[in-house]
Amino acid sequence: MLERFWTAAQQGRAIAAGDLDPVDITEAYLEAVSQEPEIYARLTPVRARGEAMAARGRARAGLLRGPLDGVPISWKDLFDTAGVATEAGSRLLQGRVPERDAEVLAQATLNGTVCLGKTHMTELAFSGLGLNPMTATPRNAVTGGLAPGGSSSGAAVSVKLGLAAAAVGSDTGGSVRLPAAWNDLVGLKTTHGRVSTKGVVPLCTRFDTVGPLARTVEDCALLLAAIEGGKAPDLRDATLAGTRLLVLEGVPFGDAREAPVTAFEAAVERLAQAGAKIERKALPMVAPAMSLAGLLYAPEAYGLWKTVIEAHPERMWKPILDRFRGGRTVLAADYVAGWAKLDALRAEWAAAVAGYDAVLVPTAPILPPDARRLLVDPDYFSAENLLALRNTRIGNLFGLCVLTLPTGEPMCGISLMAAPFTEERLLRLGQAAEAALA
Amino acid sequence: MLERFWTAAQQGRAIAAGDLDPVDITEAYLEAVSQEPEIYARLTPVRARGEAMAARGRARAGLLRGPLDGVPISWKDLFDTAGVATEAGSRLLQGRVPERDAEVLAQATLNGTVCLGKTHMTELAFSGLGLNPMTATPRNAVTGGLAPGGSSSGAAVSVKLGLAAAAVGSDTGGSVRLPAAWNDLVGLKTTHGRVSTKGVVPLCTRFDTVGPLARTVEDCALLLAAIEGGKAPDLRDATLAGTRLLVLEGVPFGDAREAPVTAFEAAVERLAQAGAKIERKALPMVAPAMSLAGLLYAPEAYGLWKTVIEAHPERMWKPILDRFRGGRTVLAADYVAGWAKLDALRAEWAAAVAGYDAVLVPTAPILPPDARRLLVDPDYFSAENLLALRNTRIGNLFGLCVLTLPTGEPMCGISLMAAPFTEERLLRLGQAAEAALA
Repeated sequence: MLERFWTAAQQGRAIAAGDLDPVDITEAYLEAVSQEPEIYARLTPVRARGEAMAARGRARAGLLRGPLDGVPISWKDLFDTAGVATEAGSRLLQGRVPERDAEVLAQATLNGTVCLGKTHMTELAFSGLGLNPMTATPRNAVTGGLAPGGSSSGAAVSVKLGLAAAAVGSDTGGSVRLPAAWNDLVGLKTTHGRVSTKGVVPLCTRFDTVGPLARTVEDCALLLAAIEGGKAPDLRDATLAGTRLLVLEGVPFGDAREAPVTAFEAAVERLAQAGAKIERKALPMVAPAMSLAGLLYAPEAYGLWKTVIEAHPERMWKPILDRFRGGRTVLAADYVAGWAKLDALRAEWAAAVAGYDAVLVPTAPILPPDARRLLVDPDYFSAENLLALRNTRIGNLFGLCVLTLPTGEPMCGISLMAAPFTEERLLRLGQAAEAALA
Repeated sequence: MLERFWTAAQQGRAIAAGDLDPVDITEAYLEAVSQEPEIYARLTPVRARGEAMAARGRARAGLLRGPLDGVPISWKDLFDTAGVATEAGSRLLQGRVPERDAEVLAQATLNGTVCLGKTHMTELAFSGLGLNPMTATPRNAVTGGLAPGGSSSGAAVSVKLGLAAAAVGSDTGGSVRLPAAWNDLVGLKTTHGRVSTKGVVPLCTRFDTVGPLARTVEDCALLLAAIEGGKAPDLRDATLAGTRLLVLEGVPFGDAREAPVTAFEAAVERLAQAGAKIERKALPMVAPAMSLAGLLYAPEAYGLWKTVIEAHPERMWKPILDRFRGGRTVLAADYVAGWAKLDALRAEWAAAVAGYDAVLVPTAPILPPDARRLLVDPDYFSAENLLALRNTRIGNLFGLCVLTLPTGEPMCGISLMAAPFTEERLLRLGQAAEAALA
């Protein structure tokens, strides 16, 4: 059933037109998933069938609740599902069954989406590569032997392989955008504080964000609206003509590999041809913000999880355990001073980029590394892990909303970074960029 | 000119009626202040006269901008004043002249209030007693030899002595409520995150709040609206009939002195006579929340100030320096875990007090201590300082809004604590309680 590879919006329109039955498409996904054991950590077939049946009834009665009513979606395994284990990729949380759905899942369900199940992720979401030897590592959906990108690894792969119409993931340092880019998808990192994280297993509450991964910008817009309970922006007539885009030079290109840079520059060229005015400069507050990351991420992650981790450290993969423990000795005063410094740098960023519609960077400076070598070569793992999330983390540190789009070159994404809480404008810009890159 | 002792609302009404000239009342305050060198750190007579003249013009033209247009107000010396030193009671900030007004001062100015000047406070707002041997210690306005209460010490005393119609202070652990209570005033600690702290010298950004000190609940309501730019709630017809009030037993009464407890109980009795249903219980989440204070306050304060402090520690009074340095060794992970724990306790509090209109405690468990003895007896200082802020800090830890009212017994206040962001309801309740206690 090739409808599995349609966009979520296409499926929704076909359901509304009576050309696609929510139960049929749900069954098609459930069957296809059974051939792919390493992408979903857990299916929720009973729930999915019940929701699909209800959507079918609404479709027949002409009472659909929104553009994604009846469309099957996957959920990263850190979104609480009532009565179903939610383990956030970690053996530390094995058998953890929440009583209620996460707020975003409850809202999306109200809006008619069908919950297929829970996708694999890296342990407690604290790694960008997508490897999880403690549970399972989904294969890269474009090139099997490569890392899928994380932590929303299963989320991205489920969409690319036609095992869900779209996916909901989370992004603390790049975990929506990196797997989206490495699997040729669109991913939206929302502004911190915009989308509810109630019922979402936390990693760093001051950076955690929830966001969609999908085939198109339109799907991201519709899914964002579905999980928030709002209305998606009108993407028609979006244009690049008259927009000002800033290529952020400097930091994002340090140690970058040729392929993603070439793909990025070709994409920028097409945006220019479509009418965007491209400027280029480095910004002085980027490097100092980046240097704060170690001070701000690991201590918060370790603070939230230390009791659970130190009760059973043997249940974690060593590289992830080490990352958490990296936050052990940071002093609270330094952490607080770091946040004060970051707040000041955010104000400097806002002043420096005022007037630009978006700031552009290659989503990742590297292609996905070899999955098997990462498992056996700790130096390779460290170096690639650090670089993988380097560019995405700029968006988290500066508190922005960011959209990553495929460039057309496999596994190479281009990111459009915009001011906090401007998702609707960013999605319109992204729609125009997507058309220019197609 | 006895109008100096009128409430701010009375002055505003008289200005609107043409019975009081903003310039006259401003001059009266400026003259009276010149007799009292230890209450204002700095006057702003040029600004005050200019603002008063403008208000006079608006009054004559019938173009007043609100109920406090033309009314002279004092500002704690941590609110930035454009072109005028703002030193937060600290020699560390001597000569610090900001370029812009704090957002709340700018807003209040737009609404017509006259800025008389900047009131004394304890160093960087980090003490509840109101002593500041590095600048000046205002005397208690009720009983001269006693501590005024801090850190908004000059704010409270300026109002009580008729040196400002009302004052704006800040409250991080009790610094609006304690000086209000010890000087027989009304004080409102607003919900953290409600009132802008932009341009306010910080102490602990995650607890800092801005709030009014005044003669009446009505004045607090009007001044809150003036600094926020909104409309004050209608306080008419406020009643205690049918309200449910909870006397919080346990922690707030530990080591409490007889006078404030007796005054509190008599006040509660009068609230009951006025129709409130009084219940009493201890709540299990209070003590654990209190025990987190050391983990959350000092490290944040030290983190924000350590560079400035350690460059010139000799510029601070030793007891305050020691309090800051108390945060030096706390680990970031413990600080983060402490906040996660506090968030959970806040949810428990909210569930436990749902259904009550307010929770009642004596604002302070002690009367103001002897000011001179505090300076020479470190043990006395430590013990009194700790107790002074004990009850108020409950409101900060649980993130509530809190109103303190005079009980009628000198220097004894009663606090009404209510759910976050319910200031309007709390002010109506407070208006009814004030009438019952009058």
